[in-house]
Amino acid sequence: EDQIRALLDERVRAIHDRDAQALVSACAPDIVSFDALPPLQRLGAEAVRARAEEWLGWYDGPVGYDIRDLRITAGDDTAFASYLYRVTGTMTNGSTVDMWVRSTVCLRKRNGDWLIAHEHTSVPFDAESGRATLDLKP
Amino acid sequence: EDQIRALLDERVRAIHDRDAQALVSACAPDIVSFDALPPLQRLGAEAVRARAEEWLGWYDGPVGYDIRDLRITAGDDTAFASYLYRVTGTMTNGSTVDMWVRSTVCLRKRNGDWLIAHEHTSVPFDAESGRATLDLKP
Repeated sequence: EDQIRALLDERVRAIHDRDAQALVSACAPDIVSFDALPPLQRLGAEAVRARAEEWLGWYDGPVGYDIRDLRITAGDDTAFASYLYRVTGTMTNGSTVDMWVRSTVCLRKRNGDWLIAHEHTSVPFDAESGRATLDLKP
Repeated sequence: EDQIRALLDERVRAIHDRDAQALVSACAPDIVSFDALPPLQRLGAEAVRARAEEWLGWYDGPVGYDIRDLRITAGDDTAFASYLYRVTGTMTNGSTVDMWVRSTVCLRKRNGDWLIAHEHTSVPFDAESGRATLDLKP
């Protein structure tokens, strides 16, 4: 659990500093990523790195990533964590972002190191309007 | 892996038959659920049961739930699975549903039985329009 908590802390640091390379260093080569934005899935660390660079490139300055309701379940070599996070920042076009997102991170231990084998990030959507609900608060 | 595959098969059967009770029988009492629709999270099997009854009640007749790209990683007592599913059916108001959704299921083994400790279900959204993307295909 402590190792996974440290991995997530490093993730927060990498996002804050818009460091896509550090972000992807915790990913398994064959990671399956379900992101908040299309497509349905991305396969492999290289696709995740390209996506992280694109995403972090939309921001001007640091990206806030505040985690709450973190729950970690860790076995010997398989683990998962779920949490909510509030992402905040200013985009290069001047607009500001402040929204709550759900995140699930699933991990495998290989040669003593935990790697992210699967991640799932999303916001809910309103069934009547078909719009993503970007103003929810926990 | 076989046990988890059987659990997911039973899940497909329960959804097809709109059997909320069977669905929730695989859930841990303290399940954390991130659903495709608001709120951000539901805590506990009773909240998940109430939500499943509401959701399945929107449908008239069987609900199709076709899984693809299933990936299961199972340790001794901790496991996770990710997959895409196509949900199809006719609502009580006559409209039809046919969309692809992402699902992550995280499990713990207790007394020899796998239970779902966490689930995360979502569709991506389009950042420009703010709309959920309900027409994606894998």
